[in-house]
Amino acid sequence: MIKQNIYKPRREQIYDWMARENIAMIMLEDAEGRRDSNIRWLTGQPGDALLFLSVGRKSLLVPWDVNIAGIYADAEHIRAYSTFDRMPVKACKKAAEFFKIPAGAKIELPPETSYPRFLKFIEALGGFDTLCREDGVFPELEHFRAVKDSAEIALYRKAAAITNDLIDSLEKLLRQGKLKTEIDAAAFIDTESRRRGCEGTGFETLAAGPSRSFAIHAFPAYSGESFGGKGLSILDFGLVYAGYTTDVTITAARDPSRPQEKLLSLVEKTAKLALSRAKPGTPAVQIASAVDEVFARAGKTMPHALGHGIGLDPHEGPAMRNRNDNQWILEPGMVIALEPGLYDPLLGGCRLENDILITKDGAEVLTRSRIIRL
Amino acid sequence: MIKQNIYKPRREQIYDWMARENIAMIMLEDAEGRRDSNIRWLTGQPGDALLFLSVGRKSLLVPWDVNIAGIYADAEHIRAYSTFDRMPVKACKKAAEFFKIPAGAKIELPPETSYPRFLKFIEALGGFDTLCREDGVFPELEHFRAVKDSAEIALYRKAAAITNDLIDSLEKLLRQGKLKTEIDAAAFIDTESRRRGCEGTGFETLAAGPSRSFAIHAFPAYSGESFGGKGLSILDFGLVYAGYTTDVTITAARDPSRPQEKLLSLVEKTAKLALSRAKPGTPAVQIASAVDEVFARAGKTMPHALGHGIGLDPHEGPAMRNRNDNQWILEPGMVIALEPGLYDPLLGGCRLENDILITKDGAEVLTRSRIIRL
Repeated sequence: MIKQNIYKPRREQIYDWMARENIAMIMLEDAEGRRDSNIRWLTGQPGDALLFLSVGRKSLLVPWDVNIAGIYADAEHIRAYSTFDRMPVKACKKAAEFFKIPAGAKIELPPETSYPRFLKFIEALGGFDTLCREDGVFPELEHFRAVKDSAEIALYRKAAAITNDLIDSLEKLLRQGKLKTEIDAAAFIDTESRRRGCEGTGFETLAAGPSRSFAIHAFPAYSGESFGGKGLSILDFGLVYAGYTTDVTITAARDPSRPQEKLLSLVEKTAKLALSRAKPGTPAVQIASAVDEVFARAGKTMPHALGHGIGLDPHEGPAMRNRNDNQWILEPGMVIALEPGLYDPLLGGCRLENDILITKDGAEVLTRSRIIRL
Repeated sequence: MIKQNIYKPRREQIYDWMARENIAMIMLEDAEGRRDSNIRWLTGQPGDALLFLSVGRKSLLVPWDVNIAGIYADAEHIRAYSTFDRMPVKACKKAAEFFKIPAGAKIELPPETSYPRFLKFIEALGGFDTLCREDGVFPELEHFRAVKDSAEIALYRKAAAITNDLIDSLEKLLRQGKLKTEIDAAAFIDTESRRRGCEGTGFETLAAGPSRSFAIHAFPAYSGESFGGKGLSILDFGLVYAGYTTDVTITAARDPSRPQEKLLSLVEKTAKLALSRAKPGTPAVQIASAVDEVFARAGKTMPHALGHGIGLDPHEGPAMRNRNDNQWILEPGMVIALEPGLYDPLLGGCRLENDILITKDGAEVLTRSRIIRL
């Protein structure tokens, strides 16, 4: 019952757009190497599948595993992928027949469709006007998804509560000296999250002790190296609750040197600055450039973007990067990870990442990451 | 020193191919949503990067994180991605200038390049003959990589030894009743692998107890459900050692019913059959169809392929599926995961997956997965 209430109105938004834009059918694909969580957003199906939406306001879901679809998915029609010999081009052609799409009508493919595959679709869909473009329905989906609905915000409150619970426990364990290695820290996150009902983690948990925190993303993500000892340790993780991931980073600092303390205080300062600027109507690029300016005045450079939206994907709209092509304006309902960080080959790295919800007149901080001085 | 010995000969194979095929420059890209482990295979760089290969037998690596590249990567030239404003099209144009590629010469892009992006590359690389095709260098790379060299086989022996060690420990823990939930089983794999020097796991560890083993790939991958109790439990995992992943699946069966025992014995029978047919010169499709026939005679259907090659990716060449377009012939040096399995919504699922190395006159079984009858 809940499934229908959530997913159908989302598809209705897309059907409206299709009618306006005169698009007869849209194909989406979620497959190895071509992940697309739009299918989960539109139907609830969490795994490999194709999805066809018809301007006649009907959907056809083609899952790899029909048993999983039976549990999770809401769509007007469901057919096993094996029905189409697991061939996307064939499934697309059959879907057009199924929906009685008239010759010459527009069929839209994902903008990530490769050039060689696009040629095959065009050949198979000879009678139709087949589109593959970056300014079609997919940026529309990205904008719809960037503004979370009330069901999504409720899930985020739940995900954030579990995340905060683990942050508090982590701090306690660190102060008690009970987390010795990167493996200990990551294993705590990976097991305790699931014990508390999370589906999993939004990305591989990243635990980098003082010897490895200099890298933006340590490689490997975690290892047997010590964690929480003298210097700077970074722990970056996200908990997935009913599909939605948080994304937080804690830095643990033990006996920081003066140059290390300078990194910490700059990062804390920019985190506060970014939060104070986050409100509806503000261009995302303005916030990102304000932070970059503070770092620049201190002679430092942040080697990555200030943040990003989060949702079913660990990186989604709005972009929070300081680049001319960033056109995003903050709106109520957006859920954003802000993650100022500085990295030095000798001093190590420091990052502070929290998730915020843009509200009517500002921002609500959902998570409680902090720099933990041991 | 070791880096050069391993990576340079691999690039030399590609330079030879480029000279033969009259390709002046090749671009590879490893990025979020467009992962390509060919860059790691050719240079050792494990993270996000672009790689340009010139027919003049020089490489230009453009990593996101130069600190990581400094540790892992071997290439004639290395430039930070930020040099090119992190824009692939711009980097490609600059690389062509850097290598003094003459006007009109052929530049090959990854076959996964999307149609809209391909148009942008064509525009930016106006003076060149820009190619994006499925029958270019990328299938060559896939074939080169499918046959492991001696360095890779040595790594596989190490990865398999750790994998087997964990399988033995798992069986012991299961018999002692010390693994109670799916989380316990997955946490054991995820932590013990890294304690033994593995980089991580090749994919999210999948632990499905009797209530969830009916799905090919349980969703979520593991949870708080019980594991190893009455019925069929599946544990599917891969350990990554220096980049190379194993891929094994154990089924634990406690007090199986007669129909469950039938699934188990059919899967054991087909695993033996597949192994007995695996030798150089045999078409992969023959082995896969032989297994499907055995299942069909028993009135069963396996809803996935028999197996796949493994390496830097958990799925690579050779394909081991029963489909007309599967042209792979087994060769010495191929490392293959064979994974017959059967799934039933009421009985649960059973899969037995082991990794083999094709040798001069047959196959060597690298891993020791088994059906564990508790």
